Amino acid sequence: MATDSLALVVTTATGPGILHQLTGVIARHQGDISSVEILDSGRDSPTSRIYLEIALPQADAAASASALLGELRAMSIVRDVEEVQTFQRIYGKRIIIIGGGAQVGQVAIGAISEADRHNIRGELISVDTIPLVGEQPLAEAVRAVARLPRAKALVLAGALMGGDIETAVREVRTRGLLVVSLNMAGSVPDAADLVVTDPVQAGVMTVMAIANTAKFTIDRLKKRVF
Amino acid sequence: MATDSLALVVTTATGPGILHQLTGVIARHQGDISSVEILDSGRDSPTSRIYLEIALPQADAAASASALLGELRAMSIVRDVEEVQTFQRIYGKRIIIIGGGAQVGQVAIGAISEADRHNIRGELISVDTIPLVGEQPLAEAVRAVARLPRAKALVLAGALMGGDIETAVREVRTRGLLVVSLNMAGSVPDAADLVVTDPVQAGVMTVMAIANTAKFTIDRLKKRVF
Repeated sequence: MATDSLALVVTTATGPGILHQLTGVIARHQGDISSVEILDSGRDSPTSRIYLEIALPQADAAASASALLGELRAMSIVRDVEEVQTFQRIYGKRIIIIGGGAQVGQVAIGAISEADRHNIRGELISVDTIPLVGEQPLAEAVRAVARLPRAKALVLAGALMGGDIETAVREVRTRGLLVVSLNMAGSVPDAADLVVTDPVQAGVMTVMAIANTAKFTIDRLKKRVF
Repeated sequence: MATDSLALVVTTATGPGILHQLTGVIARHQGDISSVEILDSGRDSPTSRIYLEIALPQADAAASASALLGELRAMSIVRDVEEVQTFQRIYGKRIIIIGGGAQVGQVAIGAISEADRHNIRGELISVDTIPLVGEQPLAEAVRAVARLPRAKALVLAGALMGGDIETAVREVRTRGLLVVSLNMAGSVPDAADLVVTDPVQAGVMTVMAIANTAKFTIDRLKKRVF
C-alpha cells in the first residue's frame, strides 16, 4: 500500500448494495481500493460508517482526489465524507507475536522498546500480540498473519511448537513474511528464518530486521541461531 | 461483526472495477460485507488476492453461502475462492496500548499475561501496541483506534499527555471505546474511564474489563483512580 493513499470515512444510508455503489464510483475514477472496514453496520442506527483506503492514479492525484470526493458527496446514499489518515501513516508496519503469555510478554518488551527507538527517528512500527494455546489455534493464527494488513514479521514465542504450526510457518514465509522463533522444543525453529534464545533480544532483532532506520539484514548474517 | 461471518480469500484477475464486480454479486445474495483487504494488489503478479468478511441472511446461512460461493467461482474474473477463518474467530477483541516505550512495554506485560488466562478459558483477546512521541502523532493514533476493526479498549501509557490527545480521548469514548490511562501528568487522566498507577495492573484491569470470562464491571467500581 502506498503511503500517499487517500483514506476516507464515508457516512451512508444503510442497506444492501451500498458498498457496490461506492466501489462503482471509485472504479470510474480509476481508484484502487486497498482496504475497507464497515465501522458501524447501520444495525443500531439509520446510517453506516465505512472506512476506505484508495490509491489514485499518480499523474494528478490531488485533482483526482478532489473529483472523486465531489462525486462521492453528490451520491444520494452519502451523508458525509471525511478525509482521515491511513492506518499505514499512523500505525505503520506490524510485527505479530504469537504464543505463550510468559514468552510473548518478554518478546513484546524487547520489540516495543526497540520500535520506540526507530519510531523516534521517523520509522513507524507497531507490535501486536496474541497469547494462545494449542496446535490448531496457533497454526490458524500463523496462517492468518499472511492476511493481516501491514504485517511484515511474525515471532513465535513458546516452549513447544511443531506439527501443523511448522507447516503454517513454511506457508507464510512463501508469502514474504519474516518468521523469527524462540529457541524451543518442536520443529518450528527449523522452519524459521531466525532462531533467538533470549526473548527480549528476539523482539529487538525482529524490529531491526524490518526497520529502514536499522543496519541489520538477515540475509547477511553468518549464523541463523543466536 | 457476527462471529459466524463467512471469510473468503478470492484470487482474481487484476484491473480497476474488480471489487465493484465482486460486491455486486455479494449484494445480490444479500451479503453484508464487514471487511475487505487487498492482500496482493496484482502490481507484481497477474492476479490479485482479496480477503472478504461477509454476513449472510440468518434464515439459511449454509445454503446462502453455498449459492454465493458457486456464483463467485463462476465469475470470469475469479480464479479461486478459498474459505478461511475470520479475524474475529482467530484474533478476537483487541486492546490497543499507545505511548512511551517503557510504559507501553510494562502495560503489555500485564495485558498479555491476563489475556492468556482468559483465552485459555475460551475468550479471544489480542493486545496491540505502538510506541509514539509527540502530541499530534498520539492524538491521531488515538482517533484512529475508533476506526480499527475489533478494537474494544485503549490504554494510554505515558508520563505526560494532554491538549489534543485529551480531545481525542473524549471523542473515541463517545464511539463506545473504553479508555484507561496511567496516572500521569497532563489532562488525559481526567478524560479517561479509569486511571491506574501501576502499568502491569493497568494492562490486567483493561483485559478484565472487556473479557466475558471476568467478573469486573467498570460502571460498578466505587472509585475511578487506582
